[in-house]
Amino acid sequence: MDTYAKRRADLYTWMARTSTAVVVLEDTEGRRNPAVRYFSGHPSDALLILTITGHAVLCPWDENLAEMMASVDVIVPYTEYGRHPIAAVSGIVGKIGVPPHSRVEIPDDTPYPLFLRYVEALLEYDVLCRTDGVADEIARMRSIKDAEEIATVEKACVITDGIIDLIERQVKNGKIKTELDVALLIEREARAAGAEGTGFETLAAGPTRSFGIHAFPPFTAGSFSSPGLSILDFGVKVAGYTSDVTLTVAAGELSPAQEKQLALVERAYDAALALYKPGTPTRDASLKADEIFRKGKRSMPHALGHGIGLEAHEGPAIRNREDNEWKYEPGMIVTLEPGLYDPRIGGCRLENDILITETGNRVLTNARIIRP
Amino acid sequence: MDTYAKRRADLYTWMARTSTAVVVLEDTEGRRNPAVRYFSGHPSDALLILTITGHAVLCPWDENLAEMMASVDVIVPYTEYGRHPIAAVSGIVGKIGVPPHSRVEIPDDTPYPLFLRYVEALLEYDVLCRTDGVADEIARMRSIKDAEEIATVEKACVITDGIIDLIERQVKNGKIKTELDVALLIEREARAAGAEGTGFETLAAGPTRSFGIHAFPPFTAGSFSSPGLSILDFGVKVAGYTSDVTLTVAAGELSPAQEKQLALVERAYDAALALYKPGTPTRDASLKADEIFRKGKRSMPHALGHGIGLEAHEGPAIRNREDNEWKYEPGMIVTLEPGLYDPRIGGCRLENDILITETGNRVLTNARIIRP
Repeated sequence: MDTYAKRRADLYTWMARTSTAVVVLEDTEGRRNPAVRYFSGHPSDALLILTITGHAVLCPWDENLAEMMASVDVIVPYTEYGRHPIAAVSGIVGKIGVPPHSRVEIPDDTPYPLFLRYVEALLEYDVLCRTDGVADEIARMRSIKDAEEIATVEKACVITDGIIDLIERQVKNGKIKTELDVALLIEREARAAGAEGTGFETLAAGPTRSFGIHAFPPFTAGSFSSPGLSILDFGVKVAGYTSDVTLTVAAGELSPAQEKQLALVERAYDAALALYKPGTPTRDASLKADEIFRKGKRSMPHALGHGIGLEAHEGPAIRNREDNEWKYEPGMIVTLEPGLYDPRIGGCRLENDILITETGNRVLTNARIIRP
Repeated sequence: MDTYAKRRADLYTWMARTSTAVVVLEDTEGRRNPAVRYFSGHPSDALLILTITGHAVLCPWDENLAEMMASVDVIVPYTEYGRHPIAAVSGIVGKIGVPPHSRVEIPDDTPYPLFLRYVEALLEYDVLCRTDGVADEIARMRSIKDAEEIATVEKACVITDGIIDLIERQVKNGKIKTELDVALLIEREARAAGAEGTGFETLAAGPTRSFGIHAFPPFTAGSFSSPGLSILDFGVKVAGYTSDVTLTVAAGELSPAQEKQLALVERAYDAALALYKPGTPTRDASLKADEIFRKGKRSMPHALGHGIGLEAHEGPAIRNREDNEWKYEPGMIVTLEPGLYDPRIGGCRLENDILITETGNRVLTNARIIRP
């Protein structure tokens, strides 16, 4: 049984337990869902229909790509259903002979108007669309990486570390002058090392722009690693799985306020890392970082971290909201990324990827504050 | 009155006509909506609330960015509402004093589970979530570009043409060897020419991969413009507006089947272009291309074109589906992109951007089949 079939088998067990006859997953422009890739190997733009009887039917936008990459029971050309998800779902559900009144669970991100059309087209069935159903179960499954996934992320992290070291050298010898230089260096090096590409758009913000949480535009022809604080946030994608790191370049003489900002970020990083261990609520680490920043009369405008994998942001959430009920578990791969931003002195963020182990954690990447 | 206020004024007129007290627009990870930028100037990650009394309230994720880029009546920190859209909408609607039973229209891509929570939080109001409401009106507004938008897209197209010419020269003198070379050249040249960046991920597919409609991964370290058919699909973004072109490089001796494929694509392109004129249904051009391909015993696996602007794909749709009721109108800027794909001989797509004028059309870009 291949990896995809094994993952589907786990989901079929959940479907049997919850009497869910059919699960519909869709990956489409505007509503990306990497669960399609997770369960089928097909990288994008497809409808995946899973049945309680253990069948996986894929309707891909690009059949040629599916023939090469998908591992499912049946591939049905999407054109057979006019490339419309509702036509495809009702057609396939009918063809399979799913008994009336069965539960058919559609994606939890189905827009309300589309939901109404699903209900109309599947009148004989019990159409479910909910966050606490299959979406929750898949998020839970995906938050705990299997051995193959861990090995893949580790590969992405090794390439990432090589690029960080190269960037440090090139910053120190003056080869990197602009945000564009560093962003394109990453694109090239990632692919040269065998990566699929970058995992998300690289954010490179020189001293005049680093105060933005996510600089806009992500990178420009403007200067990088010139005196002051520069931020570089990037990820390397291997077989769909991305790393996610942020380093800060602190160049030239820093002001006391800048030095204090760096020290606060490093202190929050160390204190929070100690709480990245199995059984501990992820909220605790977030509250710890908040407390350190509060004592320094500062505050962080974003979450402390998140899971990574087929998405740059996935479960678990690592934030201070009261409704955050995630706990660290062995096999989770998450970021730790405290940051502080100030229009007068610039920003600083330090982000690494961390595997939760049986006994604590293992830091997989080596992003740092670089002082050229 | 600035551009954004003028656009909002048009929407307020629609709101008055349809008795819609409040319109909620959201741009967030996973549910991007450039209408926020269209009506406010704020580039991303925000909630925009528009009221029938003519007020625009922005809840941005990044306040610093909003202070620089947004043109609205009020900026309210999103943190005031725990960065939750429902808390923000119900808080602001309450603060403004919107009368009970008023119509509050939320985004048409609101997932069904979130829709239920909106309804619960706004029990006193008539919550609307529909495709034929404000979303349709905004799509219609955005499909007809104003003078400022046309000038912006024209700038993007001029930069695009310069890059196409440079690529042709570098392909001919052998400087471009890989997909990576050509993709990074575009990233660099676009920014050097003052663009915000590329409008979407560049697709560069050498002869072994060009049979994919959208090659996966989008570009690799593999060869480009080596003998056979290579496809390059890219866009240049200026102030949020993207161009979208595809050129095909036909290198070396081609087989009769490859030559026939190129000729069919060019024939479909010319015939369809003649139908890109005001008053003509966009479906007609699509059916015309289909007919030419059918006579050549081939078929195209994607739509013939689409509008471009703040999104790489926006209204009007240009496809053969019976439910496509769009007509060309002066001010629309659209693509024309016939393509054929075959795993044995590779793919060919030719795509340019076209402004619909009062009397016909004007082709804004100069993508072509390049024979080195």
